Amino acid sequence: MSGNSFGQAFRVTTYGESHGLAVGATVDGCPAGLPLTEEEVQLELDRRKPGTSDLVSGRKEEDKVRILSGVFEGKTTGTPISMIVYNLDVDSSSYEALINRPRPGHADLTYALKYGRRDHRGGGRSSGRETVGRVMGGAVAKKLLFHTHGIQIAGHTLQIGRVKAPAPPDFDAVVKAQRNAVRCANEAKAMEMVQEIRAAAECGDSVGGIAEVIARGVPPGVGEPVFDKLDAEIGRALFSIGSVKGVEFGAGFGVADLRGSQSNDPIANVDGSPRLLTNRAGGILGGISTGNDIVVRFAVKPTPSISVVQQTLDMVTMEDVEIRVAGRHDPCIVPRIIPVAEAMVAMVLADLMIRGGFIGPSRI
Amino acid sequence: MSGNSFGQAFRVTTYGESHGLAVGATVDGCPAGLPLTEEEVQLELDRRKPGTSDLVSGRKEEDKVRILSGVFEGKTTGTPISMIVYNLDVDSSSYEALINRPRPGHADLTYALKYGRRDHRGGGRSSGRETVGRVMGGAVAKKLLFHTHGIQIAGHTLQIGRVKAPAPPDFDAVVKAQRNAVRCANEAKAMEMVQEIRAAAECGDSVGGIAEVIARGVPPGVGEPVFDKLDAEIGRALFSIGSVKGVEFGAGFGVADLRGSQSNDPIANVDGSPRLLTNRAGGILGGISTGNDIVVRFAVKPTPSISVVQQTLDMVTMEDVEIRVAGRHDPCIVPRIIPVAEAMVAMVLADLMIRGGFIGPSRI
Amino acid sequence: MSGNSFGQAFRVTTYGESHGLAVGATVDGCPAGLPLTEEEVQLELDRRKPGTSDLVSGRKEEDKVRILSGVFEGKTTGTPISMIVYNLDVDSSSYEALINRPRPGHADLTYALKYGRRDHRGGGRSSGRETVGRVMGGAVAKKLLFHTHGIQIAGHTLQIGRVKAPAPPDFDAVVKAQRNAVRCANEAKAMEMVQEIRAAAECGDSVGGIAEVIARGVPPGVGEPVFDKLDAEIGRALFSIGSVKGVEFGAGFGVADLRGSQSNDPIANVDGSPRLLTNRAGGILGGISTGNDIVVRFAVKPTPSISVVQQTLDMVTMEDVEIRVAGRHDPCIVPRIIPVAEAMVAMVLADLMIRGGFIGPSRI
Amino acid sequence: MSGNSFGQAFRVTTYGESHGLAVGATVDGCPAGLPLTEEEVQLELDRRKPGTSDLVSGRKEEDKVRILSGVFEGKTTGTPISMIVYNLDVDSSSYEALINRPRPGHADLTYALKYGRRDHRGGGRSSGRETVGRVMGGAVAKKLLFHTHGIQIAGHTLQIGRVKAPAPPDFDAVVKAQRNAVRCANEAKAMEMVQEIRAAAECGDSVGGIAEVIARGVPPGVGEPVFDKLDAEIGRALFSIGSVKGVEFGAGFGVADLRGSQSNDPIANVDGSPRLLTNRAGGILGGISTGNDIVVRFAVKPTPSISVVQQTLDMVTMEDVEIRVAGRHDPCIVPRIIPVAEAMVAMVLADLMIRGGFIGPSRI
Repeated sequence: MSGNSFGQAFRVTTYGESHGLAVGATVDGCPAGLPLTEEEVQLELDRRKPGTSDLVSGRKEEDKVRILSGVFEGKTTGTPISMIVYNLDVDSSSYEALINRPRPGHADLTYALKYGRRDHRGGGRSSGRETVGRVMGGAVAKKLLFHTHGIQIAGHTLQIGRVKAPAPPDFDAVVKAQRNAVRCANEAKAMEMVQEIRAAAECGDSVGGIAEVIARGVPPGVGEPVFDKLDAEIGRALFSIGSVKGVEFGAGFGVADLRGSQSNDPIANVDGSPRLLTNRAGGILGGISTGNDIVVRFAVKPTPSISVVQQTLDMVTMEDVEIRVAGRHDPCIVPRIIPVAEAMVAMVLADLMIRGGFIGPSRI
Repeated sequence: MSGNSFGQAFRVTTYGESHGLAVGATVDGCPAGLPLTEEEVQLELDRRKPGTSDLVSGRKEEDKVRILSGVFEGKTTGTPISMIVYNLDVDSSSYEALINRPRPGHADLTYALKYGRRDHRGGGRSSGRETVGRVMGGAVAKKLLFHTHGIQIAGHTLQIGRVKAPAPPDFDAVVKAQRNAVRCANEAKAMEMVQEIRAAAECGDSVGGIAEVIARGVPPGVGEPVFDKLDAEIGRALFSIGSVKGVEFGAGFGVADLRGSQSNDPIANVDGSPRLLTNRAGGILGGISTGNDIVVRFAVKPTPSISVVQQTLDMVTMEDVEIRVAGRHDPCIVPRIIPVAEAMVAMVLADLMIRGGFIGPSRI
Repeated sequence: MSGNSFGQAFRVTTYGESHGLAVGATVDGCPAGLPLTEEEVQLELDRRKPGTSDLVSGRKEEDKVRILSGVFEGKTTGTPISMIVYNLDVDSSSYEALINRPRPGHADLTYALKYGRRDHRGGGRSSGRETVGRVMGGAVAKKLLFHTHGIQIAGHTLQIGRVKAPAPPDFDAVVKAQRNAVRCANEAKAMEMVQEIRAAAECGDSVGGIAEVIARGVPPGVGEPVFDKLDAEIGRALFSIGSVKGVEFGAGFGVADLRGSQSNDPIANVDGSPRLLTNRAGGILGGISTGNDIVVRFAVKPTPSISVVQQTLDMVTMEDVEIRVAGRHDPCIVPRIIPVAEAMVAMVLADLMIRGGFIGPSRI
Repeated sequence: MSGNSFGQAFRVTTYGESHGLAVGATVDGCPAGLPLTEEEVQLELDRRKPGTSDLVSGRKEEDKVRILSGVFEGKTTGTPISMIVYNLDVDSSSYEALINRPRPGHADLTYALKYGRRDHRGGGRSSGRETVGRVMGGAVAKKLLFHTHGIQIAGHTLQIGRVKAPAPPDFDAVVKAQRNAVRCANEAKAMEMVQEIRAAAECGDSVGGIAEVIARGVPPGVGEPVFDKLDAEIGRALFSIGSVKGVEFGAGFGVADLRGSQSNDPIANVDGSPRLLTNRAGGILGGISTGNDIVVRFAVKPTPSISVVQQTLDMVTMEDVEIRVAGRHDPCIVPRIIPVAEAMVAMVLADLMIRGGFIGPSRI
């Protein structure tokens, strides 16, 4: 029942199946006056695009966005911004054999049980391709946040399989992490991560990992207690991405090992304003931004599509069977999830900043 | 801007400040025909009540609930169920000294920056006392879930400070964990945890921990992709609790170390129905329940109120100052957060099960 | 399924049955910093109170409001404002005979069919007493609108039964209309209306009427196309009041008789601003306020509770039966609905003005 | 701030400007399993299409719908159904002269004041062309209602200018009213109405009117008190259509002239079920459907675009000026609004019937 919209004030509604005609997003609530071009949205789409290296899916999608409404003479008008990407490189052949055999780790089984029927081609709506709509919505949100407040949002990889990278030295290093194939800020570790992925791929297997998104420049006061807290909304946003199994802010699960005197961030007068001197809170206290960086990490499970033999069920005969999942799949989706996670964080911030009065709802 | 309601179909709206007249909750969307008594709600409230041992706050609140509406002749009528608890043992004296000195780790600073003014007494709206409303709403949700589907929800403590407990052998052990002061299923570890808390308390300090909530009996099909996924909604629900800094489902952050062949849960015919043979997914695939136990863990930060000297700012003079937080505080809030977390999970399930048609919206 | 909240940014949730313990409202989304006292809310409640003359119900309710939260030291804090009125003068005896015999014109039948069971005492949730919650929420909205923008909202009676009053000469006359028992701005007609009501009452019958609400001082730009238009939201708000069967803005149904050249309001430079010289639009164009008075009229059906013999059904025996509705009822509810309608208009304006950025969402 | 979605459980989000690239709608919440074709949606679009007679706009739009998602092998899948119509016959030349001169009776002025900038071409988002999205969403709703409950929704014209038609003898007559150019069930009056429109058009003027929509087959119990009542939601839905200035149910404004004994509908056992013997309530009591026909009437203002000289303001020079509105306009939009009104009523019913459990939210 209608779970395909995200946000209240800045609301993104997405649609589209992996092998259907198109995927799209409609942004409702972007104020008038924001300069916006198809090129800007395209840049974000290109960051999640498949077919860019041997580490990701071989599907060759141009993923060319078209803005259908809401922008006039280069600026938004305050009316809904609808964006569309037609699906071009659709090859559903490898899915036919699996129609009645739900792939382990995928949503095939649960969609079948919930809806009774489903578009099985390419995973249908539960495919990662659904995130094209998120990235388009997020592109508008990012532009709005940067244009009005200079807010920057960037993600990077901290772990892939058994390879862990140290925290980047600064925000610039995070931004630069976009340059390599695994989006890791540490070049040496990035190369190890590539090997880790290739090793799994050679076995027909896949690997997971951990990534982090940082939002810099968020003013204090963003977030709506007691339920629509900034961390609650970001948590929801990230868990709504298919493969995310864990989310943590600041010190995260590490708080269990700390005492209060180690966990609390001291407050001080910094250049005339109250500021937290450390950021174990991850930029959020009581569900409201502190003005420090918003820091959130999330765990991504290994791609469920693997060519290793797996046990499943034939839903027609109800017999246990073994399958191998053919098709074009990423042996590791962590790098491609990063722009999606950034998009979700941007959407949350745009929504809560309009709700909180930081961004004018009708025009900027 | 209106962030004090939770849920769409089963919507709980809470109100109340720590040292105000009352705290309360209104449940809108509970179907007619559910047997409900004040005693049942009271049982849940008693589980989060302060003043029960030396491990928790010395505030002595009777926390006696009154159902004001929506129940007639022992059953719900489909109209809003409003419940109220008057605040009785209010002692605001120790907060006067801190009016302009935000306590580190608390929401004092962010509330002040956001709203310009705040009820500082006892933490006002950002106090843990706000969760009384959640527990009342959750009590109705729990009853609805159990009455209609036999669903049971129980939480237990996995870690406090440096003391870690093993996973309980079964669900019964989880239920029994309620009996000891730290709600740990392992009695030996429970005693160690008590020592850990006392050790911190003796230093005027506090400790955090990790707890887990399990929902048993949830039918397959619950959750509304692509944004209102079951894990997204539970994630949001738990992060909306003040001290939660991390949330994970099933294998959680551990997925980073797994390969796809280890992470995917095999599917098989179990007694005529498709079932997952393992539960690394934590009971959720593609945002929809699988029929397995829903398993979610969360990290709780150490209580920010400590009597250790801390650095903060005087918001009037804008000078850096040192404070000690007096008052009656829990040196560890993990055990008292468990019923709150259960309540939130119950509210999510009630909401999504009505939205998904598992529970009739008007009557049961 | 959860239809007891009104508004998005300024959200009022009400609860309570006619003969239950209490009726109440929680306002979520009122910004911090608004001066607010129980006396101000009480004044509005007193305007809808029963037992004030022989024209209205004999139920003697003190209707004393208590603000439970959200106000600290005389000002709102940005947290939910919960208000409660306990029910005191409850006499359910006359309703016992009607438990299984739905009163024509009331919601008895439809509630029974929808929910399977209902609190029949005094009409339960479908009683006009439910509007106490609306008036309390509206009182906060009115104060917010007046305090921030000087907006005034006032209603008056245009017709009762066959007696029609002319449009009042100006807004002051509308405000003064509150002074007489029927809230008609024309004193002579007011006396005739009283006779009309008495004549019906003497026959054990009741009369309906038409009233108008005017909102003065609303700035241009309020309303959110294309669905949450100002007129759409006000229309919804007024139709949500039990007895309202028709709503019209400006020229209303009269537009059918006009040509475009008569219906369009000319635009001109008035004191440097664009203004409409006439107001056939009722202050709204394209769902957005023009800056002119918002003018809305609504038709109120005769009180369905009459002591005249009526045909209904015994739901147990399924036999057609005749009933007379005893109890304490208003022979005409038009005057008492006016403060409720004002409250609803105020709630819509508060909500849309926060949503539109006219009123700061967190503080004023 | 995000007012372009309608409904909660069955949510329609529309986008698009009159002279932009496309107009579209995404339906979120339609259950899986509903047979749906582009042809069915096209049929409804054809009913509102311009260019079909000399009574309506000369714009020649093919208005060919494409379903982009949510339908697989002829049936819905429970995922969002996105539909698009590209704009083809766009001629913005006549609007250039009016960029800074708001047309009286249109939303030009209020959009300019609210958003600061607007797509002026063809009225942009405030154009009647926006209703293409509504009709597409409504087509899905209609199909869902008919397929699951046999519900039929039909509208007809009761008045155009000074010509009034009698109420049609029965529902079949209403359905047949679609056949003539003015959608009036009375053929003789239909011809008079055509003359009335032509007479106005010859003067460069326009006329308004009154129409009625009837929904037959709605089961008792639909509607969510106390705010999301069936009449409140339909009222909101109809007032969200650009030119609607009044809405009434059943006896409507006529209730002012009735006594309670005349207004109340008697209840009786009809074929074993409780039924109302008359329908002055318009099929709704206490905001919940009675099982009788839902009967709603609405007043439509004369088309504001007229070639008669009108007074307005030049927003650049701030001088009062006179304008004539050129372009292709309907001298009367009542007949073309009828399918839009039907669509809105269908959307409300689909939404409330899913919310009320009458239609399964995930599959039918």
